[in-house]
Amino acid sequence: MQRLLIGFLIVCSVLFSVSCAAQETAVPMLVEKQRFSFDNYTTLGGEVIPQVTIGWESYGELNETKDNVILITHFFSGNSHAAGKYAADDMMPGYWDSIIGPGKAIDTNKYFVISSDTLVNAFPNDPNVITTGPASMNPATGEPYGLDFPVVTIRDFVNVQHELLKSLGIEKLHAVVGASMGSLQALEWSVAYPDMVERMVSVIGAGAMDAWTIMALEHWARPIKHDPNFNGGDYYGGEAPLTGITSTLAMITQQAMHPVIMNMRAPQPEVMPETALESVLNSTPVLDYLFANSANRAPLADGNHLLYLVRANQLFVAGHDGDLASAMAKVKAKTLFMPATNDLLLQPYLARKVVEVLKQQGKDPQYSEIEGIWGHLDGLFSIPSKAEELRAFLESE
Amino acid sequence: MQRLLIGFLIVCSVLFSVSCAAQETAVPMLVEKQRFSFDNYTTLGGEVIPQVTIGWESYGELNETKDNVILITHFFSGNSHAAGKYAADDMMPGYWDSIIGPGKAIDTNKYFVISSDTLVNAFPNDPNVITTGPASMNPATGEPYGLDFPVVTIRDFVNVQHELLKSLGIEKLHAVVGASMGSLQALEWSVAYPDMVERMVSVIGAGAMDAWTIMALEHWARPIKHDPNFNGGDYYGGEAPLTGITSTLAMITQQAMHPVIMNMRAPQPEVMPETALESVLNSTPVLDYLFANSANRAPLADGNHLLYLVRANQLFVAGHDGDLASAMAKVKAKTLFMPATNDLLLQPYLARKVVEVLKQQGKDPQYSEIEGIWGHLDGLFSIPSKAEELRAFLESE
Repeated sequence: MQRLLIGFLIVCSVLFSVSCAAQETAVPMLVEKQRFSFDNYTTLGGEVIPQVTIGWESYGELNETKDNVILITHFFSGNSHAAGKYAADDMMPGYWDSIIGPGKAIDTNKYFVISSDTLVNAFPNDPNVITTGPASMNPATGEPYGLDFPVVTIRDFVNVQHELLKSLGIEKLHAVVGASMGSLQALEWSVAYPDMVERMVSVIGAGAMDAWTIMALEHWARPIKHDPNFNGGDYYGGEAPLTGITSTLAMITQQAMHPVIMNMRAPQPEVMPETALESVLNSTPVLDYLFANSANRAPLADGNHLLYLVRANQLFVAGHDGDLASAMAKVKAKTLFMPATNDLLLQPYLARKVVEVLKQQGKDPQYSEIEGIWGHLDGLFSIPSKAEELRAFLESE
Repeated sequence: MQRLLIGFLIVCSVLFSVSCAAQETAVPMLVEKQRFSFDNYTTLGGEVIPQVTIGWESYGELNETKDNVILITHFFSGNSHAAGKYAADDMMPGYWDSIIGPGKAIDTNKYFVISSDTLVNAFPNDPNVITTGPASMNPATGEPYGLDFPVVTIRDFVNVQHELLKSLGIEKLHAVVGASMGSLQALEWSVAYPDMVERMVSVIGAGAMDAWTIMALEHWARPIKHDPNFNGGDYYGGEAPLTGITSTLAMITQQAMHPVIMNMRAPQPEVMPETALESVLNSTPVLDYLFANSANRAPLADGNHLLYLVRANQLFVAGHDGDLASAMAKVKAKTLFMPATNDLLLQPYLARKVVEVLKQQGKDPQYSEIEGIWGHLDGLFSIPSKAEELRAFLESE
């Protein structure tokens, strides 16, 4: 039952705070969460993390030549669980189960699909997440790092995944595919390891953070930074900044959804609701729909981890070493960009900008907008509409 | 100099936190802020406010038959200063000076244009704002009301304006025109006093709050409610909840702007900025552009007032007495709706919904979208593109 509940929380509620639109297969693909550790990782900023551990899982079989690998990189609130179920009676499968599996667009009969947790995952208190970040024990002190953990970047997420692949003897990626923050990692892979990546798929993504998005991300950080329990990130012995985390998760959930779908799912606003008229501090069913749900999920998240994730995203420009054009000049992979037309969080102009830059360099990026009423979440819930396009891209030479 | 500074703060920075796009006329129209008080106002919720005082100003002359009146209703962060200057050397004129004045679309050679502060104005500490709200003295205690102030609605804003007009002997409105929260008041006027309102113009507006917008507004309230200085709204003897207010103003500013204009005006993001890599708590020039500016404006705002304004907006459904259709059935005014195509805060679907309802009732609403790169603020800065359409509407029978 605990397992059931956790599965449901992770796949549906934790990730999207709405019931999941992913399709269940009749016979679920069973998957197992695994653990990868290595020592002395040096961050892009030049700091050393003595011990890094992340979780990962895979679907399909690695072939002998180890050249049938597709890497899936996860979004801000996500984790490695992209497809299948951990147990046959899990309520929901992984977030992209609609496109990953036997015979599906990302066909596990052909490909060895691997997906890992990132560093500083948002939900380290979720028993299915294995990550290293400020909530991890600092071997130098025997206490959680807190803000002594070094600031990390999307490139660091990629470099840690590279270590994982190396440990499996994988030197080539048939493709790397990611949504949202996962798209930043996918693109960064094609810049950081251009000879290793054959195909890159950016779903609801960007090539560099613009000022508007950097500011939007900061609104997610402030409620945690200014929570009275935050205490400069040193709260592990006491009360966690749950009020701030609740605000943050509620903003993420709302901004990932378009008004059309939110209004379809939320309670109807009342005319002159008595409790709302009594005090400006009182809630209403409409507000509870978003905020009570976020409050329920908050204990699985960690405040510092959310701040580190925000910062990693704020710092993103592909390549981390100049402008977008100089980074794109390094890319050798075939590329496919799939923003969502109604996305209000990472709007299609961000993907279009990368496509323009690649075209100016004589490359041939593919571009295909996902239509839907979910907004940003169309990258997860409306992806079946792009399944054949994705399959064709993966099968192309 | 103080006056200059205040004028600049109000018209540009306080309202939009960006430099103002309103055009200055060669010879400014000079206007004077006035004060209107009356006793024992009973709110829509049935509570009595013993003394109400609001500020107002006017442009043009009231004719003898008192039937040349156009009422302007202000937006969330606004006040009565819609046009002209208080002093010839004010840096900026009122927010709609581009369309209000002699010979302009709202022609002060023809019309007596009147504009008032609302109840619970967001910036009661701005010396040019005159309002009644939780920061006002409660005559029963000799202390500020705090959360003892009754919850008020958009209808209450309208009813207080009605008292002001009554005191001037005005029984007919040639038109009522408002942007954003001002559009809610304009529409409410046409429902509450249908025999009094001949024309109604809703700019960047809505007919009723939907669940999505009610939630979006709550994000503005939470940083104040959860500021350690908030103290249940009883902070007038101590430190104000300025950190929370700063978060709130920054969200309002960002959501009122489209990424295109924000990215044009903000500093360019740096690649691997040293301070940002040092600590997740450090700011960057991009973040300072938004948040340091909001922090500067915060002392002019009041936390409780912002909460009351949020609640008034959350409670809005035209008529406050049933659904949108039953309210629109009461409307006798000619109506014109002007949402902004790129608005991310009150998106055009909200105005379209009112238009559909009116058409279903056999009425003939006019609809015209404002194009621009400002987003919500196109309702202020791109309104000159609609000047002739507005003029024609006001001159029509």
